[in-house]
Amino acid sequence: MLTYSFENLEGDSLYIHLYKCIRADILSGELAPGTRLPSKRSFAKHLGVSVITVENAYSQLQSEGYLYARPKSGFYVSAIETASLPVPPQAAPEPAPPPPPSEQIRVSLVSNRTAAENFPFSLWARLMRDTLSQQREALMDPSPAGGIMELRQAIFHHLRQFRNMSVQPEQIIVGAGTEYLYSLLIQLLGYEKKYAVESPGYQKLSRIYASHHVACAHIPMDESGIMISQLEEQGASVAHISPSHHYPTGMVTPISRRYELLAWANQSPGRYIIEDDYDSEFRLSGKPIPTLQSIDGGERVIYMNTFTKTLSPTIRISYMVLPPHLLRAYNEKLGFYACTVSSFEQYTLARFIDQGHFERHINRMRTHYRALRDGLISALRESSLGSRIQISNADSGLHFLLTVDTALSDQELIHRAEALGLGLSCLSQFYPQAQPGPQHTLIVNYSGLRREEVPLVAELLERCLAEA
Amino acid sequence: MLTYSFENLEGDSLYIHLYKCIRADILSGELAPGTRLPSKRSFAKHLGVSVITVENAYSQLQSEGYLYARPKSGFYVSAIETASLPVPPQAAPEPAPPPPPSEQIRVSLVSNRTAAENFPFSLWARLMRDTLSQQREALMDPSPAGGIMELRQAIFHHLRQFRNMSVQPEQIIVGAGTEYLYSLLIQLLGYEKKYAVESPGYQKLSRIYASHHVACAHIPMDESGIMISQLEEQGASVAHISPSHHYPTGMVTPISRRYELLAWANQSPGRYIIEDDYDSEFRLSGKPIPTLQSIDGGERVIYMNTFTKTLSPTIRISYMVLPPHLLRAYNEKLGFYACTVSSFEQYTLARFIDQGHFERHINRMRTHYRALRDGLISALRESSLGSRIQISNADSGLHFLLTVDTALSDQELIHRAEALGLGLSCLSQFYPQAQPGPQHTLIVNYSGLRREEVPLVAELLERCLAEA
Repeated sequence: MLTYSFENLEGDSLYIHLYKCIRADILSGELAPGTRLPSKRSFAKHLGVSVITVENAYSQLQSEGYLYARPKSGFYVSAIETASLPVPPQAAPEPAPPPPPSEQIRVSLVSNRTAAENFPFSLWARLMRDTLSQQREALMDPSPAGGIMELRQAIFHHLRQFRNMSVQPEQIIVGAGTEYLYSLLIQLLGYEKKYAVESPGYQKLSRIYASHHVACAHIPMDESGIMISQLEEQGASVAHISPSHHYPTGMVTPISRRYELLAWANQSPGRYIIEDDYDSEFRLSGKPIPTLQSIDGGERVIYMNTFTKTLSPTIRISYMVLPPHLLRAYNEKLGFYACTVSSFEQYTLARFIDQGHFERHINRMRTHYRALRDGLISALRESSLGSRIQISNADSGLHFLLTVDTALSDQELIHRAEALGLGLSCLSQFYPQAQPGPQHTLIVNYSGLRREEVPLVAELLERCLAEA
Repeated sequence: MLTYSFENLEGDSLYIHLYKCIRADILSGELAPGTRLPSKRSFAKHLGVSVITVENAYSQLQSEGYLYARPKSGFYVSAIETASLPVPPQAAPEPAPPPPPSEQIRVSLVSNRTAAENFPFSLWARLMRDTLSQQREALMDPSPAGGIMELRQAIFHHLRQFRNMSVQPEQIIVGAGTEYLYSLLIQLLGYEKKYAVESPGYQKLSRIYASHHVACAHIPMDESGIMISQLEEQGASVAHISPSHHYPTGMVTPISRRYELLAWANQSPGRYIIEDDYDSEFRLSGKPIPTLQSIDGGERVIYMNTFTKTLSPTIRISYMVLPPHLLRAYNEKLGFYACTVSSFEQYTLARFIDQGHFERHINRMRTHYRALRDGLISALRESSLGSRIQISNADSGLHFLLTVDTALSDQELIHRAEALGLGLSCLSQFYPQAQPGPQHTLIVNYSGLRREEVPLVAELLERCLAEA
């Protein structure tokens, strides 16, 4: 009869040890397919263990399919074919080598992260506690696909009050980031359509479209925004644009081009405009630019915005506003998806908006960013670079353009800056290879700077451009 | 000169009122394109407002493109073409009609929601507070695409200890729900591939593949799981399966079929297996079934699991384990995506796992579900239905199959149950139309039941099947 030693259990229970011994013999072929195993009782007696130990081991082996039972006859070894297969490595594979350590960046104008000290942490923590104590039952219900109604209603009030948009809360679809919502939109609008992005433009967009295997056209911009003749020429159906504040140029699309865009979209039933309004809250002078969505009478515009940019990268909540006919299509085709945002964070954000904290936070941040921008611009103007720089589009959003008079190429400029510990990006990097952009225009993302870092930025830029 | 009344401001500031008046006249054509507007000074005097009011109004109109400026000449009306466009409705459109109210369901065996009282709320709240106070700075950093390392390390330890899986934390990719991860996998593995799902099976999967415009094959199951001959015949490249616990049958794929599946996947370089291990933690007897991933020596298996099922629907965190060569492809092709889970919830979950709470919660829930299952099965066996029912696959996961001896069709059964206030689903609903499944087998999802509801379930089932 089969014999196994129970001397070295290595922390296993008796039945797991027995299970492992038998399994090893089956996998090695020691126990051939079809072999009948000893009866539980006699095997237990033979091994000096209890019947229940053998029973548990047999039962586990049977669950996993190493043994099969024949009624009134006992357990038999299954036929298992492993010979042709690669053997799993004993240890886990080595991790991929980490990316090479980047230069020591002391201060960066590339990142648009916001400074931790600006997020109202204690307030947020209190609202979270309120959510936990007051929404206990509701938190156990899965969120509806488009998000919980409390949050959609809060966003609806916000849009009405601050963006002058008339929509129904049901039209608002909440998701874990705009990138996720783009993916939903491709599923909704169609994989066969051609999607147009701005050139220059936010580079991730074309990567996202490429990653979803849909055709993507890069549409050049003139001084009013995306060129409609090019939309027509390249056969685009969906124009993905940021009319309130273009990245990286900071340009605002004027009303005439907006109406031309709507006219383009209304010419053919399958055409749509995705209006990415990602940081319109941070227009630093005058009132916010009205949305394309609010002048769209033909249900052509899908409005999008995110709280990640306005609140904190830790809050991954974005939303889109679907025109009524697309909402019906969404409910029918995509309503089966689970919402990607935890209802806990949705309830907390709804409170945050409803109690007026969001508005206050935006106002506080605008004041903060305005001071930061003004300080940085003064520092640059008063530096030795003063006569060699031109600043443009500084009113909207959290970056401006800085054109410098230099003999350096953009590549050289960036490398020099990095060597000094300054992270820089240039407008020319936002053009596709086929359409080279203007040189010597830096994109100054200042949202992540601390005030005390402003002199350092000016100094590093001075050194970077010294004698060049 | 232009004249506007400032008597009825409707809460607007003077400059906004003036801006709106001029804008209306431009849009109506009252102010023709090319018209030169009065100088700020003379217009201010004429209207009896300050120069700054006119300046702000002009500036806003210029930002939005209603006016353009000519140096040393003044502001002119832009040409705006709106005639051909549909006019936006005055009020927001009516919301889509709500879905018809469903029958009054008193108790449901359809939903797999978990009961709120089982989630360790106060503990979770405490860990959230810890995260807020201890990870303040880190929370402001965007999460890496695959998730924060703390969480990936916690999952890595969990997988090693409880699933006997040897992987590197880097191989673990965190996302907001498995549905989102499927979408990433399609982008990673390819849109041109044919994806195979189990038939019968979890119906959402084929909807997700269809929604992503990829080919999807329904592979029939035999008594050991998905049929390999059918995978070959239908030309599938990716098999999406749940070998530890098939939904809805509850079947466990035996080891012999597992090796056959691996052999199939190893035959051709583009073949993969997605191993959906969604509720393996809740196997109610014996030890957990080892994963396919742990016997995969050929980097063919992508392992997936979720915390939504084990913890609470409010926690929308899932993960997948990529084999090394796919991890490299992921980093290259999809590493630019932002992580879809808020880092706040990631840190909190990492704490929950690291401090042993996850393990304790699973153990407590297994005890809870075992008692619930045993109570329900006893109640059914002791009811007047005792002799007409057969229960199968009750050991794994949070549902079992209940086959009843009845003359009713499944449709009639479901309607009768609904009329009594009992939500029911049948195995036959999980087959595609072309492959009708067996009749009279109910899927009893008991995870959302409260213990005191068990007698009601038995009573309603009795009444539903009375004289039928």
